[in-house]
Order: sequence, then C-alpha cells, then structure tokens
Amino acid sequence: MRWDELAEQPCSIARTLSVIGDRWTLVILRECFLRTTRFEAFERHLGITRHILADRLKKLTDEGVLARVPYGARPVRFEYKLTDKGLDLYPLMMSLAAWGDKYMDKGKGAPLLYEHKACGHDLRPILTCSACAAPLDPRQVTVKQGPGAA
Amino acid sequence: MRWDELAEQPCSIARTLSVIGDRWTLVILRECFLRTTRFEAFERHLGITRHILADRLKKLTDEGVLARVPYGARPVRFEYKLTDKGLDLYPLMMSLAAWGDKYMDKGKGAPLLYEHKACGHDLRPILTCSACAAPLDPRQVTVKQGPGAA
Repeated sequence: MRWDELAEQPCSIARTLSVIGDRWTLVILRECFLRTTRFEAFERHLGITRHILADRLKKLTDEGVLARVPYGARPVRFEYKLTDKGLDLYPLMMSLAAWGDKYMDKGKGAPLLYEHKACGHDLRPILTCSACAAPLDPRQVTVKQGPGAA
Repeated sequence: MRWDELAEQPCSIARTLSVIGDRWTLVILRECFLRTTRFEAFERHLGITRHILADRLKKLTDEGVLARVPYGARPVRFEYKLTDKGLDLYPLMMSLAAWGDKYMDKGKGAPLLYEHKACGHDLRPILTCSACAAPLDPRQVTVKQGPGAA
C-alpha cells in the first residue's frame, strides 16, 4: 500500500498526518506556536530552504491551518497566523514536546518551560477525559466503531 | 539546514520527531494502541512492505518504545508490545486522532469512538494544566527558557 492510499482509510490519525505529518511542517507549526509569523523569521529560525518553507506554508494555508494576513504597504507583505483550526493543533504540539521533555532531554532538563498565565504555575500537559476529567490511561479506554467507520 | 541537524537543536518537538516523526512509524504505533502485536498482523492491517515494517519495528524497539517479547516455541516467535515509554505516546496519538475526528471526518462522524472504562462514557481527550486542571489554551501559556536551553 502506498502512503496516499493509507490516508484514504477511515482513520483520523492517517487523515491528520496527511495534513501535518511531515517533519518540516511540524517544526514550522512549532514556530507558529512560538509566535513566529513572517517568512524571513521562519527561514532564519529553521534554516530551511525557501522552497520547502514556501511549499509547506502554502499547504498549511490551503488547508486552513494558517491564514495569510497582509501587513505593511508598498509592497504589501504577508504574515502567517494560526487559525482556530490551527490553534486546535496545540494538544498535538504539547504532547510532542512533553514526551521529548521526559525522554530526550539528555539529562539537562527541558529546553522550554510553560507557564500557565491562568494559574501562574509552570505546567505539564495532562490528557484527561471530557466526561469525568480523570487523566487518560490507554489501558482504561475501549475503542469502538464510530459512525464514520468503513 | 538538514533535518538531522535540526534534530540536534535543544527542541523537544524535533527530538520526539527524530524517534517517531515518520508517517509509517505513527500508523504502526496506532496499531500498537489498537492491540496489534504480531508482525503478520501489522503487515495485514497496514499493507506495507515487510522491509519498511521490519525497519520501523526495529527502530522502535531500539528506542525502547516497543519491547520484543518471545511467544510460542519451535520456532520461537516474537511480538511487539508498548513499553511504558511507548504508552506515554498516548496523548500524542489521541491528539492526532481528535484533530482528525473534528476536521477530517468528511461529514460522516468519527471512525472510532473511545469509551472510558473508568466512567463508562464516550470521551474526547482534553489537554489540561497539571497545576490547576483547567483546559489549556495556547493564548494563556507563556513559554520560557528552561534548564536544557542552549
């Protein structure tokens, strides 16, 4: 099976990966959550080629994850901002970061800390159940076919 | 910058992606969380080549995400089980699935539903703050340099 066939399966993980499942795309999104918005700033922070950067920003814009917003004049330029759809990738980005913080810090501690303005404390992200608010343990979750199953 | 240089940056997202940031790896992990353990079952469910599958299972085993556990005899065979380090990828997998369920269900609803055995309800995963338990909004989080910063 080729990858693009797999992405046609009724699987929400494969479908999400078809939009953002590219390592460059994910580090571009990291920059977006760190408040980077301008092409030159992405280029400088990531050191990637302009071609790859332009391609990935276009795809994210086409998918509605980023919005291309004009700023300045003569010439008009554009910056890239997370839409609500893009902001909804936050749990994914924080889950990637938290696993790296726990298992891949090379003994030095986390590169970044996250302070929750709402409560004033540094935080770790905890995935919880929408029904009972308990932290989720995969051994306590049963998977069933849903309405969108094949 | 090449990808492997980027992964050397003090960034927990890039570091995590260096282990699991490959689309085939992520769908193999999906299967692991769906209780698939045997080579032939991964092959049948995913339709990928034996070469790619063996390569990715070896990498995940080398990284301590999966454990290769013997079963049977004459010949001894092996199955692949998530370690605690692998089970800690659950928030990542659920975040991938939840975004796809919300934005990519093609109007048909989620392919899979998740029932929380602890409370008996179908759940959506909610990412919350470890300090105050409130759901996390990226606009309410300040990022600071941590001890492992460059």
